[in-house]
Order: sequence, then C-alpha cells, then structure tokens
Amino acid sequence: MTTDTPMQLGMIGLGRMGAGLTRRLLADGHTVAVNDVSADAVDALAAEGAVPAYDFAGLVAALDAPRAVWVMVPAGEVTENVIARLADVLEPGDAIIDGGNSYYRDDLRHASTLAEKGISFVDVGTSGGVWGAARGFSLMIGGDDATVGRLTPLFRTLAPGIAAADRTHGKDGEPLPGEEGWLHCGPVGAGHFVKMVHNGIEYGLMAAYAEGFNILKAANAGTPGTAAHDSQTAPMANPEYYQYDFKVDEVAEVWRRGSVVGSWLLDLTADALHASPDLAEFSGNVADSGEGRWTSIAAIDEGVPTPVLTTALYSRFASRDLDAYAEKVLSAMRKGFGGHVERPTGE
Amino acid sequence: MTTDTPMQLGMIGLGRMGAGLTRRLLADGHTVAVNDVSADAVDALAAEGAVPAYDFAGLVAALDAPRAVWVMVPAGEVTENVIARLADVLEPGDAIIDGGNSYYRDDLRHASTLAEKGISFVDVGTSGGVWGAARGFSLMIGGDDATVGRLTPLFRTLAPGIAAADRTHGKDGEPLPGEEGWLHCGPVGAGHFVKMVHNGIEYGLMAAYAEGFNILKAANAGTPGTAAHDSQTAPMANPEYYQYDFKVDEVAEVWRRGSVVGSWLLDLTADALHASPDLAEFSGNVADSGEGRWTSIAAIDEGVPTPVLTTALYSRFASRDLDAYAEKVLSAMRKGFGGHVERPTGE
Amino acid sequence: MTTDTPMQLGMIGLGRMGAGLTRRLLADGHTVAVNDVSADAVDALAAEGAVPAYDFAGLVAALDAPRAVWVMVPAGEVTENVIARLADVLEPGDAIIDGGNSYYRDDLRHASTLAEKGISFVDVGTSGGVWGAARGFSLMIGGDDATVGRLTPLFRTLAPGIAAADRTHGKDGEPLPGEEGWLHCGPVGAGHFVKMVHNGIEYGLMAAYAEGFNILKAANAGTPGTAAHDSQTAPMANPEYYQYDFKVDEVAEVWRRGSVVGSWLLDLTADALHASPDLAEFSGNVADSGEGRWTSIAAIDEGVPTPVLTTALYSRFASRDLDAYAEKVLSAMRKGFGGHVERPTGE
Amino acid sequence: MTTDTPMQLGMIGLGRMGAGLTRRLLADGHTVAVNDVSADAVDALAAEGAVPAYDFAGLVAALDAPRAVWVMVPAGEVTENVIARLADVLEPGDAIIDGGNSYYRDDLRHASTLAEKGISFVDVGTSGGVWGAARGFSLMIGGDDATVGRLTPLFRTLAPGIAAADRTHGKDGEPLPGEEGWLHCGPVGAGHFVKMVHNGIEYGLMAAYAEGFNILKAANAGTPGTAAHDSQTAPMANPEYYQYDFKVDEVAEVWRRGSVVGSWLLDLTADALHASPDLAEFSGNVADSGEGRWTSIAAIDEGVPTPVLTTALYSRFASRDLDAYAEKVLSAMRKGFGGHVERPTGE
Repeated sequence: MTTDTPMQLGMIGLGRMGAGLTRRLLADGHTVAVNDVSADAVDALAAEGAVPAYDFAGLVAALDAPRAVWVMVPAGEVTENVIARLADVLEPGDAIIDGGNSYYRDDLRHASTLAEKGISFVDVGTSGGVWGAARGFSLMIGGDDATVGRLTPLFRTLAPGIAAADRTHGKDGEPLPGEEGWLHCGPVGAGHFVKMVHNGIEYGLMAAYAEGFNILKAANAGTPGTAAHDSQTAPMANPEYYQYDFKVDEVAEVWRRGSVVGSWLLDLTADALHASPDLAEFSGNVADSGEGRWTSIAAIDEGVPTPVLTTALYSRFASRDLDAYAEKVLSAMRKGFGGHVERPTGE
Repeated sequence: MTTDTPMQLGMIGLGRMGAGLTRRLLADGHTVAVNDVSADAVDALAAEGAVPAYDFAGLVAALDAPRAVWVMVPAGEVTENVIARLADVLEPGDAIIDGGNSYYRDDLRHASTLAEKGISFVDVGTSGGVWGAARGFSLMIGGDDATVGRLTPLFRTLAPGIAAADRTHGKDGEPLPGEEGWLHCGPVGAGHFVKMVHNGIEYGLMAAYAEGFNILKAANAGTPGTAAHDSQTAPMANPEYYQYDFKVDEVAEVWRRGSVVGSWLLDLTADALHASPDLAEFSGNVADSGEGRWTSIAAIDEGVPTPVLTTALYSRFASRDLDAYAEKVLSAMRKGFGGHVERPTGE
Repeated sequence: MTTDTPMQLGMIGLGRMGAGLTRRLLADGHTVAVNDVSADAVDALAAEGAVPAYDFAGLVAALDAPRAVWVMVPAGEVTENVIARLADVLEPGDAIIDGGNSYYRDDLRHASTLAEKGISFVDVGTSGGVWGAARGFSLMIGGDDATVGRLTPLFRTLAPGIAAADRTHGKDGEPLPGEEGWLHCGPVGAGHFVKMVHNGIEYGLMAAYAEGFNILKAANAGTPGTAAHDSQTAPMANPEYYQYDFKVDEVAEVWRRGSVVGSWLLDLTADALHASPDLAEFSGNVADSGEGRWTSIAAIDEGVPTPVLTTALYSRFASRDLDAYAEKVLSAMRKGFGGHVERPTGE
Repeated sequence: MTTDTPMQLGMIGLGRMGAGLTRRLLADGHTVAVNDVSADAVDALAAEGAVPAYDFAGLVAALDAPRAVWVMVPAGEVTENVIARLADVLEPGDAIIDGGNSYYRDDLRHASTLAEKGISFVDVGTSGGVWGAARGFSLMIGGDDATVGRLTPLFRTLAPGIAAADRTHGKDGEPLPGEEGWLHCGPVGAGHFVKMVHNGIEYGLMAAYAEGFNILKAANAGTPGTAAHDSQTAPMANPEYYQYDFKVDEVAEVWRRGSVVGSWLLDLTADALHASPDLAEFSGNVADSGEGRWTSIAAIDEGVPTPVLTTALYSRFASRDLDAYAEKVLSAMRKGFGGHVERPTGE
C-alpha cells in the first residue's frame, strides 16, 4: 500500500468485497465514488469518505475523464446488466474493470463490445475475501498495457505489498509487480483465467485438509464401546490401530508452525476448530461458485488431467446430494445380483 | 454342468449362495451332506435330496474319507469359527474349501494351521449371486494341485460350462478350465485374490453405469419451470443444452443390444429400471463388503494406481455420509475466508 | 434385422462404420447410394450391390425424394463441411442423418440451419464398432417424430433386434423399439447426448477392467528375485502377500462365464489377452475422442458428480504424458522442502 | 526456542534431519551425544559442539541415566535394527524416541517390546524438512505422559515457538503446546499417526498446485502455430479461449500475497519456478514415501472417503509409469472394438 499518485475510481457494488476495496483505496488517499443498489450502503461508505453516487449518471458525473469504474457485483446476469448500462453512460477513453468472479470467456465478449464504443475493459481476479481490506488483495489482471498501466496506482494500493511474504530465494533488485501482490497476467481474460485456476487450486487444497481432518476424527473407530459409525461392513480387522482421540484443534495449531502443510487456509481452519472442534453448527452442505467448474472444463479442453481438482469439485456436488440417483442405481444393482437389501445409515 | 464322477461334499451354510451351490450339485448327481445353524434350512434341502446333518459330527459321519467340506458362511469371525471347529473333527487327508468372501491373507493363515493337522485348504472365490444356481457359478480357486485336482468334478458341475459364452477368438481345441467357468488360479489365496480384484472391478463398473444414468436423469436441468435441483451456484450458462427428458429404462434396453457397454450388470440395471425408473424405493445408502477395500489396499501395496476402483469405493463411503466431518470443515473454511454462510440443500 | 419396407438411403463416408452400415442395409434389401472421398471405396461397395455416387450431385440424383442421406464421416470440421455442402444440393422434405460422433450441441445448430431450407435433421449415436455389421448396431436417435418415423425401417434393419439379448425380466407383449436395439431418445441432439454418455460410461468400464488386470499383473511384486518394479519407496512390508503369478488371459476367461463382471468389453479383453497376455505390442498411449470429454463437461454443467468417469478420462490424458509439467512441479517441491533428488524410473 | 532446562540427548542418524535437530538443540544449550554409521558425520557435528560417539556403547556411556536417545534413520529395516540394538544396551528407565517416518503400527510393537525391558518409547513425527534447523520443527508426539513430560524441554527447543504464526483468533492466555509447534497427540503411535495424515494432506496440497500450474502452462494450447501438444483428439472447438502465455513464476508470486491459496508449499514453488520456470531439469518421476500410502489405507480401514488424497497418491504412482499395463489393456480394448490403432505420443 503506497500512494504513487492519488487517483479517482468509481466503485459499483458495495458488498463485502466492494466495501473492502473502497476502504483500502480511501485509506491510501484515492478518491472513490461509490454506487450500490442499496442507498444505505452508499451512505455508509460516504460516511467513511467516499463520494456518494445514487445512480450511474451520478457516478459518471463524479469522476473526471478518462474514468475508471470498478464493477464488483455477482457474476453472471447482474454483471452483464451493470456493464451494459455502464456502457451507455461512459465515454470513449473510459475504462470498466470487472473485479468479480466472471468467466474469462465473458471478458472476451465484453471487451469486444466495449471496444466498439472506445471503452477499455480490464478483468481483475480479486482474492482475499473478507480479510482483504486489512491484508490487501491479491490481484490477477487482464487487459491492454495502456489501460493496465494507467490504473497501476490503484492496483498498488489494493495489493498487500512485497512485505506480505518473505522474498523468494534468489530474487533481488527492484520488485516485480507480482511480488507486490498484483500481476498483469496478459490480455483481456488473463486475469480471470488465473483467478479461475486459483480457485480450482483452492478447492483442491481445502479438500485435502478436510479429508485429512476426517481421518483424524474417525481415528477412534476401533475403540471398544465407540458406537460404530458404519454398520455396512464387517467389523474392523485391526481395531487396536484405531483407538486414538485426537484433538483436531490442537493438531491444526501444531501444523501451523514449522510443518510442510502450513498455509493461510490452515490458519482459518485453526480459527474454526478452536471455536468449535466438532463443527456441529455446520451441515456440510458445500456450495461451489463457477470457477471450480470452469477450471475443470478448461483442463478438459486443454487435455491436461486434473484429477485432484475435479475430485474436489465433485465432492462438493456430492455434499449437496447431487449423486442421489447414481446411488440408487448402485443399490438397485446390488439387489439385482446379490439380493442385497439396503440398510439405513447408522443401523 | 457335466458329471464326470459323482462325488460327495459337505456344505456348511445354506444361505442364498450355499443353497444354490447345493442344488446345482444335487442336480448333477453329486451327494451333498448339508449343515446350517438353522435346522429348518437343513430340512429344506434334505427335502430336495441332500443328506441332512444337524451338527459337524453328523456331517463328518455322512461323508467317506478323504472328505471335502465347503464352508459358505459370512466372512470374518463366523468363517474363523467354523474352520476352527471343523479342524477338530476332520481327519488327515480331508479338505476344507472356503467359498465365502474371505480375505486371501486369512487363507494363508488357515492353510498353514490346517496343514499341521494334515488337512488341505482350498479357497474358492464364488461369483454369480442369486442367479448362480441357474446360470452356474464363476469359480476362482486357490490351493495345491493335488487337492484342486481331486475336487475338479465338483467345480465342473458348479461352473457354467463353456457354452455360457462364445468362445474367445483364436481359441480352439480342448477347452481350458477357465473357459468352463472355473480356474485354478494358483496356490492358496490365489482364488480369493482374484475374486477380490473381481469385486474391485465390479465396484468400478457399477459406478460407471450409475454416474452415467445420473447424467441422463439430470439432463432436464435447463428446462424452464423445472425446479432447480441445485441452488448453490449461479444459473446455468446454457440451459438450452439441458432440456431432455430421457426414459432411462429405454436407454438401458437400447444399450443392451449391439452397444459397447453391454454387460450382465447392465441387464440387471434394465430389470431394475423397468420395474421402477425413478428407483424411489431405494435410499441410495450403498454398502460395501471387504473386497472393494482390500482391492484398493492391494493396489497401494503393489504401488499400482487404481483411481477408478478406489473412487468407486469412496463413492460408496460417501453415500453413507462418512464424509460428513470433511464437509463441515469445508463449510467452516468457506465461512472463514469469504464469510459464506451455508444454505440448506434444496434452498 | 427385418425388412418392413425396402427403402433408399444415401451413405456418405465409407470407412469402417459407414461400410458396415451399408452392408447391413444391403443385406436386408434396402437400396444404398454410396459416396466417399475415395472412389475406390465407392467402387468396392458398388461391387457388393450399392449404387455408386462419385459426388454429392450424383448421390442426390440416385435417390427419390423425399431423400435421406446418412453422414458417417469424422466429427468436427469434416462433418461440418459435408452437411453444409449437402444442404446446397438437397431439397425441402429431404433429411440428413448425422451418424458420427458429433457433439450434440452441434446438432442443435445444424437442425436450426437446415430447417430454414426445409431439410430435416436426425442425429444417430451409433455403437457397435467394427462388429456392428455382423452383430447389428445400437442406435440412439434424436429428431422430430415424423422424420424418425419415416426412417424406422432403416433403423430396424441396422439394429441387432430383440433376440440379441434376453428379454428384461417383467417385460412382455410387443417389444418396444429400445428392445430391438434402436431408440428414439428425444428431439434433435438427444441421440448424440445419449451416445455421449454411453461413451463416457465406456471409458469408466474400460478403466475398471484395466486397473483390475494391472493389480493381477503386479501380484508377484513380493516374489523374491523378482526385479522390483518400483524403487521409489521402501521395500514391501508384507512381500509374502504378493507372490502370485496369475495368467491374466485365463482369468479373463473365467470371469466371462457366470461372474458379475461379464460384458462384451471383457469378451474383447479376453480376445486380446489370448493373443498376447503381456500386450507388449501396445505402448499404452490411449487416445480419447470427444465424447468422454463432453460427458464430463455435461456432468459439471448439470452439477452431478461423475468422479469415476472423469477419472477414467484423466487417466487417458495421463497415458499420453499430458501431466508432465504437473509432475515436474511435484518434483521441484519435494526438492525444495526435503532436498529430495529425483531418481529415474527403474533405478 | 527457549531453554527451560538444559538436557542431554543421544542422536542416532546425522543425515539432513538428524543434523538439523542436533544443531538446533546445541544452539539452545542442550548436550547432544551423536552417532552415525559415518564417522565423518560424527566428527562434523562434534566440531560444532556435539559429543562424539562412534558406537552405541559410547553413546550410552556419554549420557546420564535416565537416558533419552533419538533415532533419526530411514524408516523400516534400518529403524528396526537400530531400535533392537539400542534395546540391548540401554537400561530400564531410559527412553527411545523414533523421530523418523515410521509406520505408527510399528510403534505399537516397539513400545510393547521395549516395555518388557523397562524402556519407554516415544514416537515423534517431525516435519520441517531441510528448513527445520532454522525455522524450527513441527513435532507430533505419541507416548506416555511421564516420558513425554520429561522430554518437554527438548521439544520446546526444537519447535518453532508460538511466534512462528499469528495467534489463532480467539486464543489468549498461556499458549498451549500445540501453539508452540509441538503436540503430545496421545499414546504411543499417535505422533506418527498424525504425521502420517500430515503427509497425506501434503500430497493432496502438492497435487492441487501442480495440476493448477499445469493448466496455466497449457493455456496457450489454442494459439495458432503452437505445436499441438496432443494429437490424439480432434482440434479444439474454441481455440480462441486458450491463447494465453502465462509467466507461471510471476503467478506464483502474486498468489503468495493476499490470496486464499498462500502457503509454505507455494513459497517453495515460487522458489523453484523463479530458478527455472520450465522445470526442464526435472523428469517428473515423483517418489512416494510410506505415509501417503498408509494414509489411504487408514482411510479405507476407517471407512472415510479420501478421494483427493488417494488420487494424489495414485498420480505419483502413475508418474513412475506403474500404470503401464493398465494402459496397454485400454489400447487393446480400443483396437478390439473399434479397430483403433495406437498413435505414438506427439504424433
């Protein structure tokens, strides 16, 4: 976070992410005109120093040309609408930044349409979640050199800066932008492509931890007197090997320090397990956004195998019981060849 | 099914499989002395021509030495007990056949223990399910040459015979035993090893069909007015591609004739889908026996990758909700980094 | 195969599949005008009774209106070109049948374009491979009722007929078309959709067998004196459990008769293993056509998990070394945290 | 790292890990008697302040009772031998610490055998790799309370200490041991069990990154003029979506700061990609140690699904071509049903 040159930016969408971006920009001296479908959200940020804009015309009026407007709204239909309406009120030379979780293929279409009006388009994959306002955001950027170059002061403010991580071994001299936490990845779409893969990796990392903690949690399966958690098979051959009662929250702590599996996701897991080792308040009904799906589709299109990433995606589908019919087919087959009758879970 | 030489056999365990084996042997002229924990089960088969034996001593008395006793009881503890008790009443030169779904590693132990008493041990992986009495059983056999050789007339009767399938291209002359549906796979344990892998493959095949039918069933996901079966993601990008209402029972039929995916499992699936295309009477709570697990463990021990077979096994675990804690960890992480709150299934 | 009414058909593309379809139609009394980029291929089938057509104009001239022309050429660009050129020479009321492995999404586009010219479009997923001419082809058909109805005599000839499989339990009375081996699955695209899923399942089934046979092949990994096939880990903990020398060709035979895993793919595997148990003439460089990929994409779009089918697809990618860079990343990480230096395979 | 009470320790095995442990202990004021099969290795550490011991008798003589000896040698046979020989020279009241990558099941056996001689056994899963001497080691410990309690000063020195990571949200007051980077996980075996799962997770994390970088690397697959890296399928349907040339080393940097996927493994990946973005010096022949295998076996025994972890393990097997026979079976099947002839990679 370092102010080269204070800039002006329009921000549309003041949810968790949009508000966080705005606050980080304000704190570094930039001017941010803010708009949201909720006037209350606009007022709240105005109270923190932003310029309120209750409609797109007002937003445009609040900014000097060439303008830059950051769209931070739900991917898909909402983003489509906002970009289309913005295109009607912006002027040639202005730029639209899509900072949401849009499909990179949509970026290509948007850039093409906007180019006809002389408006530039930049896609920014934005990672950092609710912690970004404080930690800084990791920014993966696609667009033409001139536009990305013009917006650089904004990106430098939003990014965490080089001090957020130890410098990579062998690097010295002037930091490259990636080392500050923002990267011009390539032409339009490149930012959301890299963010897409980032989220695909995220699914894989999360599943790896989740499966591991599940093994630890079930490590008492052989303890005499422990209610068998699974009656659908014969008794364990070696119950003596599964009589551990692990404190998973403590395990998360020890792994956070000095181990090979330390990560920010593990830090968050430690937070959650400290608050509630059994996680009983969760149903385990795991949503997925588009990026995990698109990552697997990209892998298939490219012909590169990503069994871990796709398996992680499918585990989320299964967590929402989207495999129900497949399971019924299995049960029907088992009845067919073996006369096996289903037993209810937990019997 | 062809009687070379009528033989005598003791059969312990008269469930679906044991009764089926007995009937097929009786029909071909063999003498079968039968025992079961249920006297009614013994009486029922006695009424069909078997020699009733209400205890092990009676079974032994009913057979001429050298005897052969087929144990067809649940794998694990029950099989252990029956073999131990049999060892006490049999004589040197007699043979015990374990036809159940035992772990091949247990066979090695049993053979070693029984050898001390001069009793031979043969393991027979027996496939065919409830249909075996009529179709014949596929027999995968482990043991020493002499004992397996002596028991050959039994195996030939039980197996389906060469006519059960067209002869493999390029084979001619005298059929090999495998072509009749029984195979001396190798020394003790070899039969159950091959049966283990057979069941591992079975899991994979079943999952492939089940997943495919699930895709067909969900192929109307883009139909307007169809209740979205999944609210955890954005709307479909291309609903026009998913507006098919497939009759899965008819699809099973067409695949049964001439297609590359024809199989006996598909025949059974067609039966089930004809009776109930929605399979609403099933919960989709899919049990697993030991073989699927042991197959994956064998692959890991050998260092050969079996991603499809193990994935199929894990899908069964997940069908019984054994991944519940892992899913909660995922939800907890998502809340941690993104403030995402779970939505219930179907919201 | 039963001639209701002899019909006329144009066939474009006389490769393995197109020639097989033509021969089966000729044998049942239909008239088939044939075209191919190779005049020799045309002449060869003319010698068997087909009407030769050396260009599309000749093909059209050889058929009475309303015509039906079956396109059996490689999916993608070639099919696109043939359909476009056919559309220029056919007349309103004629029909084009795409019997190749086209993406069902392309069918929707083709049908729409052709409808503007009054030409009907039918998509036929055709399974049966090189054996179809003799066994009959499994036909999965999409299109409007009138056109599919008009073409029914062709489909009945091409399909294997009800005798190709035992009738499903509980079915009686007049056979439904699916039972004859052809099925009108739904509107345009439905045929190729079902064929797509069919091929996706096929990948899963094939992988299940392949992985199983790999376990059997490696079951001697613990035999003393056997060259360790893998030096990258510690010695086996229990070598005594892995000292079997299985004859995989014999195992395939025994599974073909009476077992749960019997299938046509297993029959083919038995053929191959009989000819060459070690399969040394193969490199294991496994191609994939589009359907396997599209199946996984459909699953992802629908939100249904297909871990087994996608894993099977990815194994094919990996067989062609498309995971090479991923593997290098793993090696680089291992060197990074543990100082581990790679050893070459087989060291 | 904080000296409560200087202690004495014997260290057997002075490889990367053993030497690192020794140096960290010496630096904090403990006395370490060192032994190795290489006298040079002993001398080298003696030069840094350790007490040299050229045989086990010397090691025992150098320590006051009750002694503690840390065994840091390769898991399996070497560890077995060292523990057996140590048991012969140690006295009742002494303790053996196995800090290597042993199977936790072996710990149970070792503890039982040693208990007969009055010797305590403690298992310590030790993570940190070559960086541990500087960063501290993450220690996962199994054993009885008294012995673990007595050894606590050693563990506190070796662990990174609480400052190695920000404190978990909601934690305050006196740090628990886990927060210092060492954890008494439970009775004997518990340490290696947790370390086993740790390594299983590590495999999953590594594979997630590797697969993601592979997608990025192949993101130019649609660029005209780019040599197709895969000729086994039809051309891409949408080459315009795959024309990015990503700098993977820069991407690793940007993800290290502020993103959800930041981790120590990513830091190491950034190191490696900075040095060599193409990683051409690696063959991608990825070894696996026992823990990844044991993790999957534990999951199977417990009946909990770990598809991501096991898939990651299998990818390593496949990287060493251990799926070769399975791939040949696939090729043989494809030839069987479709007459498909293999094409070599890269054709």
